[in-house]
Amino acid sequence: MRVTIKDIARETGLSPTAVSLVLNHRPNKLSAESRELIVETAKRLHYVPNQLAVGLVTRQTHTLGLIIPNIANQYYATLALGIDEEARKHGWNILFINTNDRAQNDLDSLRLLSSRGVDALILAVASDVDAQTRGEYRSFIQKSSVPVVLVNHEEPSFRCSTVKLNNRAGAYEAVTHLLELGHRDIAYITGDEDLQHTHTERIQGAMQACADMGVPFCKKYVRSGRYTTEGGAQAAQELLSLPISALFCFNDMMAFGAFQKIRQMGLKVPEDISLVGFDDVPFAALLDVPLTTVKQPAYEIGRETVRVALGEIEDRLRSKQQIQFEPELVLRESTAPFVPKP
Amino acid sequence: MRVTIKDIARETGLSPTAVSLVLNHRPNKLSAESRELIVETAKRLHYVPNQLAVGLVTRQTHTLGLIIPNIANQYYATLALGIDEEARKHGWNILFINTNDRAQNDLDSLRLLSSRGVDALILAVASDVDAQTRGEYRSFIQKSSVPVVLVNHEEPSFRCSTVKLNNRAGAYEAVTHLLELGHRDIAYITGDEDLQHTHTERIQGAMQACADMGVPFCKKYVRSGRYTTEGGAQAAQELLSLPISALFCFNDMMAFGAFQKIRQMGLKVPEDISLVGFDDVPFAALLDVPLTTVKQPAYEIGRETVRVALGEIEDRLRSKQQIQFEPELVLRESTAPFVPKP
Repeated sequence: MRVTIKDIARETGLSPTAVSLVLNHRPNKLSAESRELIVETAKRLHYVPNQLAVGLVTRQTHTLGLIIPNIANQYYATLALGIDEEARKHGWNILFINTNDRAQNDLDSLRLLSSRGVDALILAVASDVDAQTRGEYRSFIQKSSVPVVLVNHEEPSFRCSTVKLNNRAGAYEAVTHLLELGHRDIAYITGDEDLQHTHTERIQGAMQACADMGVPFCKKYVRSGRYTTEGGAQAAQELLSLPISALFCFNDMMAFGAFQKIRQMGLKVPEDISLVGFDDVPFAALLDVPLTTVKQPAYEIGRETVRVALGEIEDRLRSKQQIQFEPELVLRESTAPFVPKP
Repeated sequence: MRVTIKDIARETGLSPTAVSLVLNHRPNKLSAESRELIVETAKRLHYVPNQLAVGLVTRQTHTLGLIIPNIANQYYATLALGIDEEARKHGWNILFINTNDRAQNDLDSLRLLSSRGVDALILAVASDVDAQTRGEYRSFIQKSSVPVVLVNHEEPSFRCSTVKLNNRAGAYEAVTHLLELGHRDIAYITGDEDLQHTHTERIQGAMQACADMGVPFCKKYVRSGRYTTEGGAQAAQELLSLPISALFCFNDMMAFGAFQKIRQMGLKVPEDISLVGFDDVPFAALLDVPLTTVKQPAYEIGRETVRVALGEIEDRLRSKQQIQFEPELVLRESTAPFVPKP
C-alpha cells in the first residue's frame, strides 16, 4: 500500500493539514521540531508524493529537467546522482536528457523539457558552444517561464544562477605540483575551444602557475581531447612524439585514454610520463597506477544545484547566485619527480 | 541557422515531400538508394527534426521514456548511451529517469513519463521488485496506451518485449572457468532477492556449472551486494572470513568493491583470491589487476531495445519479441589456478 499523508499524520500525531503543508513546502506556523519530525517520518516510511494531486494544489509539476552532455562520463554520472537524490529528498522528480555534448541538442532539449512541464531547468552546457548558439541559449534563458540554473560551467552573459568548481584554482594546483616535481615540458589535453569558459579558466590557472614559477607556458603542447577517453588517447599519441615529461588532462576520462596509449607505446607512468587528471571520478583510485587528479565534489555540486533551483522556484524574484566549490589536488601514484633522460 | 527539410531536398535534388516521408518513417515508394541518400545527407548536415511540427503531422511526440536503476553504474550508463544514440539517429529524443533501484520509483516514473507524452517506455526494472509491485507493473503494462519494452531483465508474466543477456550462460561460463582452475570453495556476491529473474538465472547457471563438474554448490557462500560498489565491499568482508579461494560477483561494480576490500585486508588478487565480475564495464580492463569478467554488450543491447520500441510504435499489433544476447567470458589477470594453502 502506498504511504499517504494520513499515515504520516497518524504516525506523528500531527494533523494531515500540517503534514501536507510541510511536505509541499507551503508556509506554516509549525515548530522546527514538528517540521523535522514530519520530514523524517515521511522519509522513514518511504513516502512518495502523489504528483498529480500535488500539481492540482500547487500548480507545480514537482519535476526538474536536467540536461547533461555525456552520461557515460563518470563525472556527469556522479553529478546527476547528486542532483537526483537531492531532488527526491524534497519530493521532486528529475527528467534527464543526454545531449552527446552538442550545443544544438542542448537547445532542442531546453525546448522539449519546457514543453513537457518542468518547474526549473538545470543545464550543463555542451562544450561546442559557439557565438551563435551562445546567443540562442541567452535568448532562451531570458524568455523562459521557469528558472534555469547552470551547473559545472559559467556563462556570465546568461544571467542565471551557476554552481561550479573554481577551475582556475584546480589547474593552478595541478600544474604547480608538476613544476615542483621538476617537470618543465608539460603537455595539456584540454576539453575544447577557446569559447568554453571552463577551458579558459583551466588554461588561465595553468598559465598562472607557470608564470609564478618563472617557467614559460608552451602553447605547442596543448591539444583538445574533446573530454572523451578516445579523444584523450588520440591527443596523447600526438603529444608523446614531442619531448614532454608530464601530461595534465582536463578530465579523468581523457587521462584514462592517455594512460592506455602511454602503455601501448611501451612507456610507463610515472617513470616516463607523469600524468594528472581532473575530476577524481570513482575509478581514478582503482586505475592500474592510481591517478593523481584534481578532485571536484561532483555529488555535492549536484545537490547544491538542486537547492538553488528549488530556491528560485519558491521565490522567482530571488537574486541570482554564483556558487563556487573549491578543488583539492589528490596525490596518488601517477606523478613522480622529473628524471633527465640519459 | 537550423537545417530544414528544404535544405536536405535542395542538397539531394529530391522533393521536400520525399525527404519528409523518409525522415518521418512514413510509407513511401522511393528507391533504397534515395532513402539512403536522404538519411545520410540529414546526418551530414546535422538535421534535427522540429518536434512540434512533427508531432502535429504524426501525432507522435518522437520521445521515448527510459527508466533505469542507477546512472552511476557504468553498465547502465553504457546501456543508456546506446539507447540515446540509436534513438537520436532516428530523430527520437530520450527522457531518462533514474530510480535509485527502487521498484516504487519505477512505478511512479512509468506514470510520470506517460503523463508527459512519450511514444514508448523502456524499463530496466529495479532489483527490489516483490510480489505486490510485480502485480502493479503488470497492471500498468496491460493498461498502458504506449508500448513498454523491458531491457536487461525478463519478467515472463509482464507480456511485453524484452531485450536482455543470456544470464544463465554467462554465469555458467564464469563458474566453469573457476572450476577448471581448480577452485572448489567459490563464493558469490549476488544482486538481490530470489524474486529477481536476473539473479535466478545467474544462480541457475552457476549451479549447473557445478553440477556438470560434479562439485557441490555451497549456498552458505552466497551474499547479496545490492549491485553497488559499497555493497560488494561489505559482502566481500563477510565472505573473506570463510575458507574461500574464489569470488564471483554478479556485476563489475561489486567486483570493484570486493577488490578494494581484498586489498585492504592484506590479501592479493589473484594469488590469494581469484575474482570474476559480470558486465565488462569500460574500467574493468583498467583496474589495478585487470578484471576477468562476463562481457555484456551493453551498448548493443541498448541500440536493439530502441529498434524493438520503434517497431512497436509503428505497428502496435506486432507480436512481442524476446531477444537474448550471448555473453562472452573475457579472461584478464584477476583469476589464477588454485594453490592449496601451506
